[in-house]
Amino acid sequence: MEFTTLQLEQQPAVWRVRLNRPQLANAMSLTMVEELLALMNSAQQADCRVLVIEGNGDHFCAGGDIKDMQAAGGDSARLAEFNRAFGHMIETANRLPAVVICALKGAVMGGGFGLTCVSDLAIASSTARFALPETSLGILPAQIAPFVVQRIGLTQARRLALFGNRIHAEEALRLGIVHQLCADNDSLEAEVNNAIQQALKCAPAASAKTKALLHSVADAEQPLAQLLDQAAQDFAAAVMGEGREGAMAFMQKRPAAWAQAAVQEEKA
Amino acid sequence: MEFTTLQLEQQPAVWRVRLNRPQLANAMSLTMVEELLALMNSAQQADCRVLVIEGNGDHFCAGGDIKDMQAAGGDSARLAEFNRAFGHMIETANRLPAVVICALKGAVMGGGFGLTCVSDLAIASSTARFALPETSLGILPAQIAPFVVQRIGLTQARRLALFGNRIHAEEALRLGIVHQLCADNDSLEAEVNNAIQQALKCAPAASAKTKALLHSVADAEQPLAQLLDQAAQDFAAAVMGEGREGAMAFMQKRPAAWAQAAVQEEKA
Amino acid sequence: MEFTTLQLEQQPAVWRVRLNRPQLANAMSLTMVEELLALMNSAQQADCRVLVIEGNGDHFCAGGDIKDMQAAGGDSARLAEFNRAFGHMIETANRLPAVVICALKGAVMGGGFGLTCVSDLAIASSTARFALPETSLGILPAQIAPFVVQRIGLTQARRLALFGNRIHAEEALRLGIVHQLCADNDSLEAEVNNAIQQALKCAPAASAKTKALLHSVADAEQPLAQLLDQAAQDFAAAVMGEGREGAMAFMQKRPAAWAQAAVQEEKA
Repeated sequence: MEFTTLQLEQQPAVWRVRLNRPQLANAMSLTMVEELLALMNSAQQADCRVLVIEGNGDHFCAGGDIKDMQAAGGDSARLAEFNRAFGHMIETANRLPAVVICALKGAVMGGGFGLTCVSDLAIASSTARFALPETSLGILPAQIAPFVVQRIGLTQARRLALFGNRIHAEEALRLGIVHQLCADNDSLEAEVNNAIQQALKCAPAASAKTKALLHSVADAEQPLAQLLDQAAQDFAAAVMGEGREGAMAFMQKRPAAWAQAAVQEEKA
Repeated sequence: MEFTTLQLEQQPAVWRVRLNRPQLANAMSLTMVEELLALMNSAQQADCRVLVIEGNGDHFCAGGDIKDMQAAGGDSARLAEFNRAFGHMIETANRLPAVVICALKGAVMGGGFGLTCVSDLAIASSTARFALPETSLGILPAQIAPFVVQRIGLTQARRLALFGNRIHAEEALRLGIVHQLCADNDSLEAEVNNAIQQALKCAPAASAKTKALLHSVADAEQPLAQLLDQAAQDFAAAVMGEGREGAMAFMQKRPAAWAQAAVQEEKA
Repeated sequence: MEFTTLQLEQQPAVWRVRLNRPQLANAMSLTMVEELLALMNSAQQADCRVLVIEGNGDHFCAGGDIKDMQAAGGDSARLAEFNRAFGHMIETANRLPAVVICALKGAVMGGGFGLTCVSDLAIASSTARFALPETSLGILPAQIAPFVVQRIGLTQARRLALFGNRIHAEEALRLGIVHQLCADNDSLEAEVNNAIQQALKCAPAASAKTKALLHSVADAEQPLAQLLDQAAQDFAAAVMGEGREGAMAFMQKRPAAWAQAAVQEEKA
């Protein structure tokens, strides 16, 4: 894969992608949205177990690219299409079977905020600043609204979207936008590496099934009893699949087969 | 508008209403409920962009007026009607296109707690105390239950409703009942003024559309893809509406037209 | 009732049950699940107003019993049945008309974590450690997923389930897994006793109706207007039932009749 707006570093099972428009605070152009979507589709077909998303330069992502919007000019259909493409990308990130980690610093605004909201783990450096500035620009946080509400609830989403105020990493932790704080960008790198190792200790199929189950719960698409019946079947299948190795490794006090990558990294 | 239980102060775009039964900790009588409803219906038809709700005296609102309930005596239909009227009022506050700010001090109990739960921004002085005392009086937090659950989730709602315990402003912040704390009632006034200015910097139509979008997400009334398709259309319309002025002001590094009121206030 | 895995202490209106396999960190066997279910069914038919669940020894509950799962061997149907039984038990705990208090120390893992998630009040000693270790063992948090998501939201559930990381009591408080912290196991006992007294001050029928109402809201099974219409009827019935005594006691500045048990305890 060749990218113009992304940098990709692929290790076995772990992909790290860097948004790569540092001179523009990694503003999300239509090209970047399309490249992220292509990358995630590839990750789904490959043996990618962990996807880390971060930013080159001082920022994660300052939001949508205003120049792209202006290029669309008065073409309402093109504007809607550009906006909708971002929603497709973020929904794909949300459902990715791999574990998604966002490493955050500097500006985490608009679309960058939205992408953060679909991560399985978000770690923020103390330099990170979060905002939904759309209404102060006369526009809407249109595609990210559902993911922000699901992340932090309606109460906090109302305030951030209707006041456009900027918040610090500590408040982002309190609101549940991020899970973990770091003192600075160096410790951010260390914590991301720890998190990758931790994720690799969890069984790949069990993790993907669990992520799908959690989404299924949140979507409330079926009655609870039916969901639990299905979950019990999935549980039995897991016990007879990866669970055999899991139980054996547990009793033999050794890492499970799927955790080898993590163990090698820790020894090195 | 003439009120017996409210004080209204109208500035261009900003309405401030004070619950005005200070000798009764602003207990919410049926008259007060009806007057609040009339006020909000007027606000929807006028050019009101920000509605501040606060209390005269030492308290925000101690809850429903027990005397009104007793006046209804053994008339079950009247009791239900009185209760239901409160739900209509709070639902109207919840959906108001204007930005709703609650300024909280002293008692924030029962119905006062419920009204707080539908604000876009709740700021609490350190004097504020929050509780759902209904079950300790043998009755139910009937009309406010949905708004409390939406505000702070089922977990915290269960505890507050089933134990009737009183919590301080710090815990209310941690639970997400309020967004912001103040040292005392004086700084509360200053922070409310700051918040008004901040809200006025956001475009009125974009804010109203965004608020409706967030509600639509929370209501989960339509499938996600359909909601995002519509949101993309609304986005395009906003870019070609208020967004033109927003982008121009951003590039010219000047306040947008809709933010003039805020800017004038700050200069004064 | 005779139990092999539980200890039950019954006082008027207050039942305290201790998970009683301390040598196995109270691992939840199929027998324990069945005994808990029987106990809760009895509580529903008796005059039980408060049910406290705690653990004998140093731990609350370390999760499902791996030996039970191995005993099921390669029998997929038995595994699914074992798993599903846990879901039935936890759902019964969730809907119990009595107030459910979990007193937590040491390991609160897997199924123990799930049971915590359906309590009306969870109090944790500083010794408590929380985790969803299933995916690290190659299996799924299958029956508890809905209750974890309802308790702490999708954001936090994703991280805990996909990383299997262990968190301390302070973080459990921040995430809303628990409501209250204690310095040590001794103060845990004192705080549980306080909470029991507090719960007894709330009217039994009003509490049970309120708990059902909160669940009904969270389940979103009916449109809001319809739910509020019904709630207004329930409100009127409560005012004319327990509410009479509640209002009288309030005006006479005395404890209500239903709070006698609590008052006697405080005097002793």
